[in-house]
Amino acid sequence: MYNKVTPEILDKLSGIVGKENVLFDEESIKLHSVDETEDLSFPPEVVVKPQAAEEISEIFKLANKFSIPVTPRGGGTGLSGGALTIHGGICLSMVRFNKIINIDTQNFQATVQPGVITQVFQEEVEKLGLFYPPDPASRGSCHLGGNLAECSGGPRAVKYGVTKDYVLGLEAVLPTGEIINTGGRVLKNVTGYNLTQLIVGSEGTLAIITKINFRLIPLPKFKKVILAAFSTLEDATDAVAKIFQRGITPSAIEFMEKAAVRAAEERQNKKFPNSDAEAQLFIEVDGNYPELLDKDIEQIAEVVEEFNPLDMVLAEDEQKVQDVWSLRRGIGEAVKSISAYKEEDTVVPRANMTKLIRGVKEISARYGITTICYGHSGDGNIHVNILKDKLDEKSWEENLDKAIREIFELTVSLDGMISGEHGIGYSQKSYLPIAIAEAELELMRKIKKTFDPNNILNPGKIF
Amino acid sequence: MYNKVTPEILDKLSGIVGKENVLFDEESIKLHSVDETEDLSFPPEVVVKPQAAEEISEIFKLANKFSIPVTPRGGGTGLSGGALTIHGGICLSMVRFNKIINIDTQNFQATVQPGVITQVFQEEVEKLGLFYPPDPASRGSCHLGGNLAECSGGPRAVKYGVTKDYVLGLEAVLPTGEIINTGGRVLKNVTGYNLTQLIVGSEGTLAIITKINFRLIPLPKFKKVILAAFSTLEDATDAVAKIFQRGITPSAIEFMEKAAVRAAEERQNKKFPNSDAEAQLFIEVDGNYPELLDKDIEQIAEVVEEFNPLDMVLAEDEQKVQDVWSLRRGIGEAVKSISAYKEEDTVVPRANMTKLIRGVKEISARYGITTICYGHSGDGNIHVNILKDKLDEKSWEENLDKAIREIFELTVSLDGMISGEHGIGYSQKSYLPIAIAEAELELMRKIKKTFDPNNILNPGKIF
Repeated sequence: MYNKVTPEILDKLSGIVGKENVLFDEESIKLHSVDETEDLSFPPEVVVKPQAAEEISEIFKLANKFSIPVTPRGGGTGLSGGALTIHGGICLSMVRFNKIINIDTQNFQATVQPGVITQVFQEEVEKLGLFYPPDPASRGSCHLGGNLAECSGGPRAVKYGVTKDYVLGLEAVLPTGEIINTGGRVLKNVTGYNLTQLIVGSEGTLAIITKINFRLIPLPKFKKVILAAFSTLEDATDAVAKIFQRGITPSAIEFMEKAAVRAAEERQNKKFPNSDAEAQLFIEVDGNYPELLDKDIEQIAEVVEEFNPLDMVLAEDEQKVQDVWSLRRGIGEAVKSISAYKEEDTVVPRANMTKLIRGVKEISARYGITTICYGHSGDGNIHVNILKDKLDEKSWEENLDKAIREIFELTVSLDGMISGEHGIGYSQKSYLPIAIAEAELELMRKIKKTFDPNNILNPGKIF
Repeated sequence: MYNKVTPEILDKLSGIVGKENVLFDEESIKLHSVDETEDLSFPPEVVVKPQAAEEISEIFKLANKFSIPVTPRGGGTGLSGGALTIHGGICLSMVRFNKIINIDTQNFQATVQPGVITQVFQEEVEKLGLFYPPDPASRGSCHLGGNLAECSGGPRAVKYGVTKDYVLGLEAVLPTGEIINTGGRVLKNVTGYNLTQLIVGSEGTLAIITKINFRLIPLPKFKKVILAAFSTLEDATDAVAKIFQRGITPSAIEFMEKAAVRAAEERQNKKFPNSDAEAQLFIEVDGNYPELLDKDIEQIAEVVEEFNPLDMVLAEDEQKVQDVWSLRRGIGEAVKSISAYKEEDTVVPRANMTKLIRGVKEISARYGITTICYGHSGDGNIHVNILKDKLDEKSWEENLDKAIREIFELTVSLDGMISGEHGIGYSQKSYLPIAIAEAELELMRKIKKTFDPNNILNPGKIF
């Protein structure tokens, strides 16, 4: 249904972006065949690196004319295969859109290009006393554009919200070639449909974002962290809901089961406190008044005491806080290094988390697979990592899909959804009908068709 | 292009919702001809009051078959004519969708029907220690459904965000009759396109909302208010940006010029402190620790001191805070009672507010019209009320549209938008192209057509 990239098309692409930005050597193709999604690999036919919205517009016109798929790519850290060129064609690398155009300290806003690395942006705004809270684990290499595509979250979402909550407006190129501006630079806006929030989280299937207007907030000056260890998973997850009921909103409340902690320790060659405990909660509070944080911590400790903690460790100074965070951030990578795996991104109302984790353990026991759970428990967002580990190839092949279906059916039965912050992309699309009924899917497909009548932008994703 | 509602159709409507919920007596038609938008009046042919999504689905099937427009109506307090039946047809009153289905104190969520009055909902969740921050001035009579349609804000948006920021999921009926569920009951969600945020703020043109899942937050326990009086408009608006730069986020920071304060005093027969001042700021902080609020207030007072205040009044006790709020809430109604008027809902990045207000005054002086400005200055959201006052009919007719165009052009040139929280609806649609380019408008029209191929839902709005 799509055509191949011919030498003629390569020439035309060179005419648009310059010869040096049209790559099809073996190394470049290999590099752009994969993202962080399992061991999936789909080579593009060509990697193109534009630098301007107008160039992308020209590329789209070409792609429509010759029926070539175009798949945008940010930092390549996605966990649902959103950047994989599953139909070949053009990999549109956004690496040259790497400028922070403006940080507006008067209005607490910033205008940036989508190829800026998240951590770079975070650090630049923090130098000015401002704060960009979304904080995916891959922040050292992921792009802001990718964060918008997948509506990334991270640990601080529980207090500060996810990526979409910081996006005021966009410049984007439609698959039909038009360059549009959505939203604006204002905090409130009911001037036409909310195209911004339709494009954010659409996983690079509706438009390619070329400029982002962010809102920022003042940087909180102080942080404190408690690490609490529990002898059962349930004690940990039940404590979470109770903390919120005290009226406290931590800036992070991360859940890790023992196997996750152990994997991180091994990978990083460091020691977590209480790594023998069945489960741990990592609870951070932030704010401008340290004495207030003490009061919050005191109340949190009171709640934790009700759930038979094995131990509680307070990390007050900046270095200790950093150390604990660095262990936490390394869990994902560490767990994946154990064996072949599949990561699921379940999310439920937080009071249902205990039932979710208990159910996941029951399902995995039944299928003889290993699961490791950790994640953003304040949001009820639990990453369920399913590991092949010592399972034989045949049982793994046979049981994986069935087990995932059961996990997702359970998630949905607990008022949950099948992706909180990783997206559906390629790897989860066969499960989407578990969470979304046909009437809604049909509406989404129609919206896709409205934006992209020839289905040339990132085809084969979501639906 | 539309057909009339015939006796046959009235019969069919009665068959769907019951005879007693199909009204076409003179009094009912008159009541449903107007909302709070200027003196506009468009009588519907019939008022229908369904009670279930399935009934609305049936009504839509009928409307499509017979080509009858259907216009949803909540509390009828809209300020851009969104509920006006400008093509006649069916006024779909949502008054019977008036149930709070569930308030979930475990997960801080609520499921409600759209016909619940905003203040009723606020008060119910507050009884349980929870908080629903969106707070339109019409909260005593507006519906939550209407708040979603227009993405209402109110004074607390500056700290807590607008209506959209509290909507997790919807049940809605598409104009083609399908009943869909969007989003869910989770705080993070990248499971398919964000239909929720496309429908919220779409002013009742894409679907009729029949159920809402809200997120809630813990109710802050304490509030303090400062009222600061200034001798120039600029001193007041400049002080606003400066307060945020101190790292303080007030829970409200309202701006009122003298004429607005005077109108409210007269209408309510009460006295504002310092009502001779050219401008006033009403600044509220909230939180759980009163000693912390004192610190915030102290810092705010320091900033205010830099801008030559005439006076500062602190309202600490609950009753005083309520009194000041009640004066503030009454301004809109008071200003409108002066004469024929048109209200504009400008919004700019807050540091540009001074330029906006100065420009508005210059434009109104040039056209000989009176403008009264007040609004949510923390968000840069200024309601510009244009009054006929003593102007003769001819000059009013001739100059109003020109003046509004100039005000909106100025707003857009200051990186602003033409509606922050009232919507475009009917009354503002001729101005939309000032803010939104043709490529985006065309995309919005296509989305509308995708949802509503026969254009039977709330036709003649936005575009």
